[in-house]
Amino acid sequence: MELIDGNRIAADIIKELKAKVAALKGRKPCLALVRVGDDPASVSYVRKKEQTAAEIGVDGRVILPPVSTTQEELFALIDQLNADSGVDGILVQSPLPPHIDELAVFRRVTPEKDVDGFNTLNLGKVAQEDPSGFVACTPAGIMELLARSGVDLKGKHVVVLGRSLIVGKPVALLALQKRAGANGTVTICHSATRDLPAITRLADVLIAAIGRPEFVTADMVKPGAVVIDVGINRVPDPSRKTGYRLTGDVAFSQVAPLCSRITPVPGGVGPMTVAMLMRNTVEARLRRTAA
Amino acid sequence: MELIDGNRIAADIIKELKAKVAALKGRKPCLALVRVGDDPASVSYVRKKEQTAAEIGVDGRVILPPVSTTQEELFALIDQLNADSGVDGILVQSPLPPHIDELAVFRRVTPEKDVDGFNTLNLGKVAQEDPSGFVACTPAGIMELLARSGVDLKGKHVVVLGRSLIVGKPVALLALQKRAGANGTVTICHSATRDLPAITRLADVLIAAIGRPEFVTADMVKPGAVVIDVGINRVPDPSRKTGYRLTGDVAFSQVAPLCSRITPVPGGVGPMTVAMLMRNTVEARLRRTAA
Repeated sequence: MELIDGNRIAADIIKELKAKVAALKGRKPCLALVRVGDDPASVSYVRKKEQTAAEIGVDGRVILPPVSTTQEELFALIDQLNADSGVDGILVQSPLPPHIDELAVFRRVTPEKDVDGFNTLNLGKVAQEDPSGFVACTPAGIMELLARSGVDLKGKHVVVLGRSLIVGKPVALLALQKRAGANGTVTICHSATRDLPAITRLADVLIAAIGRPEFVTADMVKPGAVVIDVGINRVPDPSRKTGYRLTGDVAFSQVAPLCSRITPVPGGVGPMTVAMLMRNTVEARLRRTAA
Repeated sequence: MELIDGNRIAADIIKELKAKVAALKGRKPCLALVRVGDDPASVSYVRKKEQTAAEIGVDGRVILPPVSTTQEELFALIDQLNADSGVDGILVQSPLPPHIDELAVFRRVTPEKDVDGFNTLNLGKVAQEDPSGFVACTPAGIMELLARSGVDLKGKHVVVLGRSLIVGKPVALLALQKRAGANGTVTICHSATRDLPAITRLADVLIAAIGRPEFVTADMVKPGAVVIDVGINRVPDPSRKTGYRLTGDVAFSQVAPLCSRITPVPGGVGPMTVAMLMRNTVEARLRRTAA
């Protein structure tokens, strides 16, 4: 079994992006990071994105509307950022407070600055195999992890567990694309799937993205499979200072011995998501110059 | 084995639409039908669409640019139809001559008049489970055939053979949606799939959309499966006046006895595609009134 080291691969990408930004003529790329309220996980994610941006030479502009912000106010903020020629990318940190329609907010971001890849048009471009859009960061990170680990999906059976808009569906569409590295046979399972273990056992590559701690057990995995664990679940753990530990959607200790390759949590898909956000932001800056 | 009668189901829908149009206040819905050149299949498809429109009370406006039309001229025509307040829906008949970028032309149609459902934004809406767009006619027709035949996909394994933009991918995304009638576990296979018969034999519902005559044979089908044959292939047949006969992607005579339900070719999915085009056109007209 070989561990897929997301931290190392993300660090490689960040190094490449840093060189790309250093070579840029004119102003540095600018990423607007919008965080509404003080959800602890959001605070930590946005801080991490800010730090990585700084490391690369991307100008991270953090904007902190209060938790009481209305949807209209948030729309007005996004419209302003859409129109601001100094801003290349806009990220609105999920989750938003319950009084706000999250999907409507994501869609408000203009496709050209939608570095999170949540806009309807950008998802449509993934489905149409049109590379002119932005791919959502987590699915893009999964594909990059596989590519840089030497896993070619061609003809392989890729089983995606979870049909979310931001991971399951786009990663399924990416794995299916008719291009080098992809070209997989793709199955998407979810809460309504019957006899799930029989289906996940078909997987040459299993991508777990359902947000249920240690859901994937050894009996669900074919020996020799590649397992990508997208889950980042906080499980109470009184033995830790923080009071919790992070665990994936995969029962790592029992599944890992079966796999040919597996991603750990933390240190697998997580760091790739941030790296892909930065790649999209740098790309957005380059496209704006070219346009 | 029960035959799914697309002609009968399409006729029911056309009757419903006729009543809907008769009850409409103000002008009738208008569908622009653009056919470039004289491809014989295109001529016959556009004629059928025009006839069906007339039957329902939809004003079908046929526009026939010559085969020498440039991409720019076609764009200009579409821009004019997009801007024309008397036009509710625009259909550009495929295939276009080889000097024209077909996908670019389809995308040029404004999403609000894209009754063919080929626009990137409308495909993105299918992926995002947003019903405010238009679903491509063939996949919409397949879902309607299943619904009106009492086939609920919930928890069933739906295997889609073919990953085209206009059938395979959208029907996979529709079957996967979290709503009544859908909610299937979905597998998408294609030319790079290994051991295809083993995968198609998993199907409770098999949707064949690859455009290869009689490709699906009895060994590829699980007994009791529902089989939807999307293929409309012209096979040379000197015994016929026309010189050809139509056949599906399924070897009907050997597969049909195995199935619980199957669509014939012709008379299965084909008529549904036209019915769904009409439904989208009437819907486009209604949305324009409401807006």
